[in-house]
Amino acid sequence: MLHVDYFNSTIARRGRSKIFEEPPLKDVKVKESLLVLMNVEKQDEINPQHITRKTVEEIMKHGSQLKVKTIILHPFAHLFGEPSKPEVAIDIIKLVEKDLTQKGFNVARTPFGWFNIWELRTKGHPLSRVARKISSN
Amino acid sequence: MLHVDYFNSTIARRGRSKIFEEPPLKDVKVKESLLVLMNVEKQDEINPQHITRKTVEEIMKHGSQLKVKTIILHPFAHLFGEPSKPEVAIDIIKLVEKDLTQKGFNVARTPFGWFNIWELRTKGHPLSRVARKISSN
Repeated sequence: MLHVDYFNSTIARRGRSKIFEEPPLKDVKVKESLLVLMNVEKQDEINPQHITRKTVEEIMKHGSQLKVKTIILHPFAHLFGEPSKPEVAIDIIKLVEKDLTQKGFNVARTPFGWFNIWELRTKGHPLSRVARKISSN
Repeated sequence: MLHVDYFNSTIARRGRSKIFEEPPLKDVKVKESLLVLMNVEKQDEINPQHITRKTVEEIMKHGSQLKVKTIILHPFAHLFGEPSKPEVAIDIIKLVEKDLTQKGFNVARTPFGWFNIWELRTKGHPLSRVARKISSN
């Protein structure tokens, strides 16, 4: 998760996944926000509801601490874990989006299954980059 | 590793490590390049020379494929692995820098032990983000 001053994302190319969301989901163009690069992993297929709830908790906790109102959910399969089936990933990401919206955050989301051009500026404080692993245990 | 159109990094705050490099290493401001976010891990302490060589190989291979001339080595301890002792990390990063320079790349490096403000734009092609794990085996 990166605390950013701004984040612009433009859809560029289809990714490797055969399953993908049709754009437009609009290009994302937001100011101060928390950018969540998220990878749904193989073992998350077992209990997606639990993973969703814990993910929302972690994002809320960190987002509240930073006093950000906007969360960007960005599927990112380059975090070393083995990715889940795309269907499961899309489901979980959408559930996280819905829950965070209900909790009062503005949520921007980039479509699953695409490469994007990013343009961003991060902040430089000690909580401006954090990594979290969510597991079922 | 991110293939970027530009990357500007400004030193902001000391990180958590008690061992750190005194800036200035200058702020980094480069155009098209390969941004390598790198974390030296605990198990890399066993055979740093081997890790260094394989790291240089991976970066060279990817950098050549992308036809970039400039590599940015940026210490980044948020990639889930358990970090090595900072002394070992600094040694390995400096060796990687030296080797890549000898191979003909321009190498920019951010100092170890600091948080930075990043400003960047990535490309959006399928090889614009890749992740690599280097192990001793």
